[in-house]
This record gives sequence, C-alpha cells and structure tokens, in this order.
Amino acid sequence: MSSTILNKQIFSNTTAQVDEAAVKPLPNSRKIYIQGSRPDIQVPMREIKQADTTTSNAAEKNPPIWVYDTSGPYTDPTVTIDIRSGLPALREKWIQERDNTELLSGLNSVYGKQRLNDPNLVDMRFNLQRKPRCSKAGMNVTQMHYARRGIITPEMEFIAIRENQRYEAFTAENHDLFTRQHPGQDFGASLPQKITAEFVRDEVARGRAIIPANINHPEAEPMIIGRNFLVKINANIGNSSLGSSIQEEVEKMTWSIRWGGDTVMDLSTGKNIHETREWIIRNSPVPIGTVPIYQALEKVDGKAEDLTWEIFRDTLIEQAEQGVDYFTIHAGVRLAYVPMTAKRMTGIVSRGGSIMAKWCLSHHEESFLYTHFEDICEIMKAYDVSFSLGDGLRPGSIYDANDEAQFAELKTLGELTKIAWKHDVQTMIEGPGHVPMHLIKENMDLQLEHCDEAPFYTLGPLTTDIAPGYDHITSAIGAAMIGWYGTAMLCYVTPKEHLGLPDKDDVKDGIITYKIAAHAADLAKGHPGAQIRDNALSKARFEFRWEDQFNLSLDPDKALQFHDETLPQEGAKVAHFCSMCGPHFCSMKITQDVRDYAAKQGVSENEALKQGMEEKSEEFKKTGSEIYSKL
Amino acid sequence: MSSTILNKQIFSNTTAQVDEAAVKPLPNSRKIYIQGSRPDIQVPMREIKQADTTTSNAAEKNPPIWVYDTSGPYTDPTVTIDIRSGLPALREKWIQERDNTELLSGLNSVYGKQRLNDPNLVDMRFNLQRKPRCSKAGMNVTQMHYARRGIITPEMEFIAIRENQRYEAFTAENHDLFTRQHPGQDFGASLPQKITAEFVRDEVARGRAIIPANINHPEAEPMIIGRNFLVKINANIGNSSLGSSIQEEVEKMTWSIRWGGDTVMDLSTGKNIHETREWIIRNSPVPIGTVPIYQALEKVDGKAEDLTWEIFRDTLIEQAEQGVDYFTIHAGVRLAYVPMTAKRMTGIVSRGGSIMAKWCLSHHEESFLYTHFEDICEIMKAYDVSFSLGDGLRPGSIYDANDEAQFAELKTLGELTKIAWKHDVQTMIEGPGHVPMHLIKENMDLQLEHCDEAPFYTLGPLTTDIAPGYDHITSAIGAAMIGWYGTAMLCYVTPKEHLGLPDKDDVKDGIITYKIAAHAADLAKGHPGAQIRDNALSKARFEFRWEDQFNLSLDPDKALQFHDETLPQEGAKVAHFCSMCGPHFCSMKITQDVRDYAAKQGVSENEALKQGMEEKSEEFKKTGSEIYSKL
Repeated sequence: MSSTILNKQIFSNTTAQVDEAAVKPLPNSRKIYIQGSRPDIQVPMREIKQADTTTSNAAEKNPPIWVYDTSGPYTDPTVTIDIRSGLPALREKWIQERDNTELLSGLNSVYGKQRLNDPNLVDMRFNLQRKPRCSKAGMNVTQMHYARRGIITPEMEFIAIRENQRYEAFTAENHDLFTRQHPGQDFGASLPQKITAEFVRDEVARGRAIIPANINHPEAEPMIIGRNFLVKINANIGNSSLGSSIQEEVEKMTWSIRWGGDTVMDLSTGKNIHETREWIIRNSPVPIGTVPIYQALEKVDGKAEDLTWEIFRDTLIEQAEQGVDYFTIHAGVRLAYVPMTAKRMTGIVSRGGSIMAKWCLSHHEESFLYTHFEDICEIMKAYDVSFSLGDGLRPGSIYDANDEAQFAELKTLGELTKIAWKHDVQTMIEGPGHVPMHLIKENMDLQLEHCDEAPFYTLGPLTTDIAPGYDHITSAIGAAMIGWYGTAMLCYVTPKEHLGLPDKDDVKDGIITYKIAAHAADLAKGHPGAQIRDNALSKARFEFRWEDQFNLSLDPDKALQFHDETLPQEGAKVAHFCSMCGPHFCSMKITQDVRDYAAKQGVSENEALKQGMEEKSEEFKKTGSEIYSKL
Repeated sequence: MSSTILNKQIFSNTTAQVDEAAVKPLPNSRKIYIQGSRPDIQVPMREIKQADTTTSNAAEKNPPIWVYDTSGPYTDPTVTIDIRSGLPALREKWIQERDNTELLSGLNSVYGKQRLNDPNLVDMRFNLQRKPRCSKAGMNVTQMHYARRGIITPEMEFIAIRENQRYEAFTAENHDLFTRQHPGQDFGASLPQKITAEFVRDEVARGRAIIPANINHPEAEPMIIGRNFLVKINANIGNSSLGSSIQEEVEKMTWSIRWGGDTVMDLSTGKNIHETREWIIRNSPVPIGTVPIYQALEKVDGKAEDLTWEIFRDTLIEQAEQGVDYFTIHAGVRLAYVPMTAKRMTGIVSRGGSIMAKWCLSHHEESFLYTHFEDICEIMKAYDVSFSLGDGLRPGSIYDANDEAQFAELKTLGELTKIAWKHDVQTMIEGPGHVPMHLIKENMDLQLEHCDEAPFYTLGPLTTDIAPGYDHITSAIGAAMIGWYGTAMLCYVTPKEHLGLPDKDDVKDGIITYKIAAHAADLAKGHPGAQIRDNALSKARFEFRWEDQFNLSLDPDKALQFHDETLPQEGAKVAHFCSMCGPHFCSMKITQDVRDYAAKQGVSENEALKQGMEEKSEEFKKTGSEIYSKL
C-alpha cells in the first residue's frame, strides 16, 4: 500500500506535494454542495450513488445516499490542490464582514517573530501571504458572543445544513424503507427533528455546543461539537523528538480527514513544531487543536519548573495567530489535587497534567494556568479560540478510574467553564481515560452536572488495560457507550496506544474504529436520519449489490479487498452468494427463494407472501399445531 | 508471518503435523496444574512471571500472575503433540467410573458407517482406536442429570478450580495492590466470592450454566458457560464448498485455543466435513459445537425441501458419536413465524433458520425440529450433548432488530428450554445479531425472562451495519455490553464477516477482540479477581517494565512488534520513556520525578508525599487560594 509509505525525504517548501492517497476519488461518489441563504455558503457533502435493484419483474431505483463529508476540497476533482499555497480561505469574507477584527502589521508573539526571522527555516517555512488577524481593541469575536446577542452567523447556517445531511429533502422523496428508524434513547439530550440555524445559535449561546473557528483559520469548514448534534471524532497526529517529518504530519492530517476525522489535534513535541503546525493549519479543512503547554515546555528545554506564565502566554498568542481552533489547557490540575494521585496505580498519565503537577510541586504554588485563567480567556476571545479544558488527572488504569483526584479536577473544570462563559469563550471539557464499563456513566453524569452541559470530549474510555496493541478496540467500546450517554466528541485511540507512534495505517484504523463508535452512538441516541446509511447498506447486502455494499461502507477499500481475498473474480461481485457459505447455504439466497416460491404460488412478493402464509398457518393451527400435547 | 501461510498441500493422515505456531511457548510463561481432590484432576493454568520492581532503595518482588488457559496440552512443553494420535483422553476414567455408559461395537449412524467403509477416504481418515460410547439403555448421562441428583462430578470440581484462577491463594499472599477491584454492577447475577464445586453443581442443576462435555469427547478439559462464571467466547471455523482443507481447519482450531477461544464451532459446509470434524475433535481440548442441519443439507444435495427427520436424526447420532459437545438446533423457527420476516430489510440471515423456513414453506408443515424436539432430547441425553437453541430469526440488520419474528422465536426457545430441562438436557440459547446499543438490554432481559436464566450465547451483537471489514469491532461493542448485562458466552465475529472466509490472522483478530469484550464484561460485572491482570499490567506499565507489559497482555507478540516498530533497540525496552512522547514529555516519568522530588525533600515516597503536599496545600489555602475573588 503506497499510502503507508511515508515520505522520509528532507522536507522542502518548494517541492512539497499533496499525498496522492488523499486526493483519490472515493468509489461511485461525488462531491456536492448545498447552497445556503447566500451564494458563499456552500456546504459540502458526499453523494454515494447506488445501482438499481433488479428483480424478475422490474428494476427499482435506489436513491443516492448523502453522507457527512470531512475531507474538504481534497475529494473535489474540480479543485487543484497545492499544499504549498494551502486551501482557499472559505470564511475570510464572513470574518471581514463582521468588522470587529483587524489585520496586524505582523506577529505579536515573540517566538513567532523569532521563527519568522530565522534564516535556517527558509526551506521549511510555509509561505503565508496573509497577515494575522486579531479582534479590534475590546471586541469579542467568538461565535458564542454572537450567539448570545442573537446573531446567526454564516458559520451557524453552514453547520445547520451540514448536520441535517439533506434529511428533510430525502424524507420528502418518500424513501420510507431508508428513513425508517428505531426511536432512540437519549438520556435527556434535546435532539430536534430538524436542525435549524436558530437551533445552532441557541445551543452555542447556552454553551451546550461549540464551533471551533479561529479567525486565523479561515480555511476551515464550520462544524459543531455538542450533544444535540452528530457525535464527532478527533484524530491526534504530531511528531515527537524521536521521529516524523512535516510531510508526514501533513499526510496524516489529510489521511485523517479523508476517513472522517472531524477535528485534528497536532500534539507535536519534537523539532520545528511551529512550522509543522503552520503547514497543517493552512491545509486543514477541519478545526485544529493543540496542547500549548507542550510547546512551552520545549521552550524551556523540558524543565517543567522553568515554565512561566509569560512563556505560556506568548505560546498561546503564537498559536492563536497561526489559527489553532482549540487549546487543551490543563487549568484544573490544582496544587491541592496532586497529593490525591500519590496512591494511584499509574499516577498522572496526562502529559500536560504531569507537567503542571511538577510545576506546582516545584514552586509550591497554585498552577499559573488556574491563577491566570481570566487572562487566558482574554486571549481566547480575541481570536475565537475554544477551550478544551484538559483532564490532567484522568485515570491511566482501570485501578485509578473515578477516583478522588479525577472528580476533584472535574469539579474545578466546571468552575472554570463558568468563568470562560462569563467571557463568552467557547468551552468543552476533556474526559477519561481508563474506565470499566459500569463506571462510565458516572463520568458523563458528573460532567453534565458540574459543567452545565458544556460539550464533553473523551479519550475512549478504555474498558480494560490488558490489550496493548488493540486499544482502539478496548476504547471504542467505552467511546460508543459514552457517546450514547451524551459525549459530543470522541478522541480516537490507535492500535499503537501505549506502544509507539501511529503510522498511517494506525491512523486509519483509529479513525474508522471511532467512526463506528460515533455512529453507533448516533443510532442509539436516535439522531434523525442516522439509520439511513445502515438501511441502504443492508438493503444492498440483501440484494447482493456487492459494489453498493462496499461503497456505502466506512472503508470501501478494505471491504473490497477482503471480499476479493476469497472471491477475486469480477463475476463474484454480482453473484447471489458469497464465499462464506457458497450457493447452497446462503441464507439470503434461500430467503429470496422463499419469496420467489410464494410468488409462484400465485401470490406476489412480500405482502402477498404474508397473506398466503397466514392462511397456511391458520390451516396448520386447525389441524395439528398442538404438537406437544400429542407427544 | 509463517502462521498465516496455510498448508494448501493434499492432506494425508500419515504426514499431518501440528502447526508450529500452535506449540510455541508463550513469553515468560509456564503451564502449571492445580490438583483437585484426586490426582487425576489436574487443572491447567498459565503462570506469567514478572520482573522485580527496582527503585532507588530496593528491589520489590512482583508476584507471578495466573491466567485462565484454553490452550490445552499444546503449550505444555512436556507433552509431545502428534495430531495423528490426538490428545490424551483426560476424562475417560471419569466417564467409565460412572458406569452408566457402554462402548458400542461400532457406529450406529448409517452415514458414519458409510464414511468409515469408504475406501476413498483411507488417506484422510483419523485413525481412532477407541470405540464410540453411548448411555446404557434408559440411562441419562448429562451433567445436569448428575447435578440434579446432588452429584458433584470430577468435571464440576475441575471447573470450580479453573474458574477461581487461584484467586483465594493469591489473595492470601497479600498482594493488595493487585487484588483491589471496583465493586461491579451485575444486573441480578449471583457471583460468589469463591466458586466451589457445589456452586458449579447448583448452577448446572438449575439450568443457569452448562458444561458441554460429550462422553465421546474425553479429550476436552471441562469448562462452564453461565452468567455467574467468567464470560466465555466461541470461535467459528469450518470450510465451505469454496475452499479450505482439513489441515487448515485443525490449524484454525489450535490457533483459536492458543489465543483464548473457550469453545470452537465447526461450521463446515464443504467436502469431507465428517472427516474434518473427527480431526478437529480428536485434537481439541475445548468443547466443539456444530450446526447439524448444515451437514444434513449436504446429504440431500442442498435441497432444503428434501430434508427429513430421519436424515437429520442420523446426522445427530453421527456427530454425537464423534463427540460434538453442543448442537445448534433451530427448533424455534416455527411455520407461523416465517411470514413475520416478510417485511424485513434482510429477511432471514441465519443459514439454519433459512433452511428450516424453506422446509416449512415447501411442505406447509411445522418444522420437524420442533415436532421432534423430544426425540432430539432423547439423543442428547444419551451422549450428553448440550443444546444451543439457534436463533434462526435473528436480525441481520439494524432495521430488523428486536422485531416480532425475533421475539416470537425467543419465546418459543423458552418453551423448548423447559422441555429440554424436563429431560435434564443442558441448554443454552443463541442471540442476535444486529442490534443498536439502546436495544441490546431488551434482548438480555427478555431472554432471562423467557428462558429462565438458561445461558445466553450471542453473536455480537453488531451495533451498526455500515462497517464491513470492521465487524469484529462493530460487534465487540455490543458483545461487551451484553456480556455485562448477563450473556454467558460471546460468539466472535472476525473482520471478514459479510465479506469472506477468515484466515488465521482474522481468527486471531476475532479472538483477541472478543477476549477484550468478555474481559471488559467480567470487570463491569465485578467478577472476583477479574482486575488482577489489569492491575499487574498497569503497574508494569507505570514502572516501565516493558517486557512484563507485553507478556501480561492478551497478545504479547503484537505488543512487542508494535513497540519495536518505533523503538527496536533492546535498550528501549528498559528505557524510562517510550516513542510516543520521548523523555521530556513522558507523563509517567514526570510522575516518578514528582515522587522522587518529594522524597528528596525529606519525605519518603507515596504516603509521605501526600503528607508533605497536604501541609503545603494548607499553607496555600491560608495565603492565597481565593484566586478568583482577587481578580
């Protein structure tokens, strides 16, 4: 697989190229756009065409299925992708129109300037023509600020269209077999039948959803994270001091969004993380999150005790000016909570959390993230960076699940949420970790209670510790469940968790696994229209439309590959059986035969079969149904 | 990987060899046996040794961890394995001693005799020296029959020792850090703190657990399936008309038990299934299940309508004489239920169910499995074959979940359970299928209600239809949940589900995935001792004992391989960091530093750190904890 071979060459901004695997068309699909109230609101979706159903009598049309599409312009064949120039600035006009921001003459961040002027970085620097943007003095430019003032932004309208996935139009076309759905169990969520722009505004206003959308990331297609919307997933990428290049990280990002990553976190801790991040953001159609403390620590050569508020502050500004959409900030790791971790099996497993714990202990002082929290809010609202309040004390083992330290921090995150909201800064809350199944719901319930329904964003949780190499699976179990209970976004875990750095295969495995968890949650919550894709795929399966079955799946490439391993012949893809059972044993074939048999008896197809059978059943009941009384 | 290369040569009973991959020792493990009340009760377990924990002060011993071991003599280096002669007949003496069975002069089954006398099969026939065994006239030889008469069999004692996994002894050794466990949530199960032979007997007597143990499969190590025991998993193997040989199927069996398959179902539908089955049973230390209707259908050239009770009966006897431990029998697919499937998205997806539906419709008669159910019971009790009452009408899509047809059949399975119990025939119930998360519990609740706590044995359930190629994952989510709710055994699903025949890699992926689901369920239920392995692995992880972390995992080979992909150097396996973060960012390293730092301040290690920190916290609170009131 060429897609797994990462480019290990020296990176250069003159020769950098998009990963070919990222721009390959998806089978039998096309990119379509739905226009909003103005021509520059063009909401992308993927249309998957289906073949007709051919029966002995006639051909029946199967409608195309429209699915949520995170892949951005990469899968639009009409767009020429050149990662050296980045993606088009979709939101630039909307941001300008609001007239509450200004272009800066240059970077404000000391470190940003330093990197910009470093002659050694000429070859790897992204050549951004645009100036950074900041709020005008005293202005608040967050989506929450607009929402609370009753303003529906183009971003909100875009999201409303996007979340609906054309459900209303599809329903109006009378595809009853496709739209039938089990009523969900939503644990107190408020899922509307149709998502309107006003609903989006209202959810953002009350803090129940966030739209991560930094004014310096105009390339991003607006998306929303909240319990009353589709469950989202995040993919982590990032280099470490031990490997990976800019090219690889950009490829991991484009690879992530191809398979369904709704946001991407750049967790780089190695070299050139400023430049790597710039390349990622400029080419990303999804929001980018970071953990600024990682870079701050690099700036003090890894010595946690040398960290200062000033260095951290400059890092926030540096990254906000680049366009990072959300920051993980571990402001809930308070000095008093550190001793609570002393009796743990696995101490503090969050990198950010352990850095801050070390700082607190070294200085015997309260965390500067906590003491400067309102200062941080001031920066966030000047760029519309959202908080992802980090769970620095999350449990790293089943043993440590739901302990005092974890829940003490969660309560503090609730306090901080209210402070952020006072500033109209969008906020979500990070969650565990390692938690056995029966303790997962308590996490969700306490989060809703303490954080007032601010979106929950969880890592897994992993439901057992004993399967390194398979932690995408140990965690998908917990992720699906907590998604059902109300978590808004699931942070993926790859098979390499605990063991090594994920390569592109691992990234894809993690993404697909988490798309499964998120979708299973949508089905269980009863998200309107969630079942359409399941229904379409199952119908295709039952009718032996193999190609449609592959195309409708989360990973058409793998479905096709697995099928062809046993039955590679082209004819097998139209065969009325498959390799598992062969022709005699195919239950679907036999069921078709049953229906055909009934048709031959003079009754036609399903409904008639039912009638015919009922007569026969009646007959049977009259003559001999009391089998066991006779024996 | 040599293990994935299947032997495609012509199979011969003179040259057949055990798969080398099946007898490879597991790292740092040894096979141990715990003796019961008599010397021939030798219960196998796997002991995983651990390295010491080395701190600056001293070396602390870590106890060996004992885990449930399904791999049989294959992983005992003192046993010479020759698959041509099969495994030792462990249970033969116990069976003889009961003096209620007799050796037959030859096979009773017409088909069995025919195969035995077919000169074309000379090269592939397993050379069994033993005669088949049957109950003496009028005798009932089931474990349930003994249990109900208050008899504790050696099988029951074996199981009690096996289920405890040496928990009591381990606890007595004061390994508190290892034995600490979260209280579970068991939904009305009755998990004892210690499993005694009497408890096993009682559970079998009341039908809440089964011991699949055909008197003609004396090679099998006794095991139990019931909601108050460890959750078990089944692996399906079997050839189809489209491929696979005897050698391959035996290899899939030995491969399955190596990784944790508690039972194996041979679902062969291709050629020579009689001979294939014989090889599998003779070499299997775990119970073997089959679906006899598959072979019966082969006998009538795939024409369901030509099936007769006589052909089916002979098939049951044929397989019972070979030693099959449980039969899936779709006796709940009644004529009247077939019309209920007419409006389904995916009709009948169970092969057995669709065969019987076709038979019923063709004859306009009630299913012969239903009308002859008591005749079947007579056969079952003569060999101690357990029922696995098949869910022939299970839903094959999310659309069809929890519908009328499915639950009508479940109710009938409840009736049949009571009839089987009247005959003291051990019985478990098969369950779905495709079910969204929020509808899973209803399946469990109704099963418990209708079937009076007879063990539930479920396939998945798959929680979405949209991920062919990943259905081990879509289903592991449902499997973990339903296991938690009370399902006793989970039937694995491989990544090839819906697409093709699993190869050995797929079998392993399926097994490990289902071990995860079963173990997550044990943790959530609060099975005593379930958390020991998690605790041990997490402690090893935190202490950077990499090798121990790998060895304690469900798949040590993969854990090691993944680690070495990023950091292959031998030194990296003792390094106090890993490839994910590098030395600066390692949260575990930092946490260690935090503890060391505290120690240097004159307070020693964990408890002291806590004290020291509390003082500092107090100080902090007095001087400036009201951060936000000051701002």
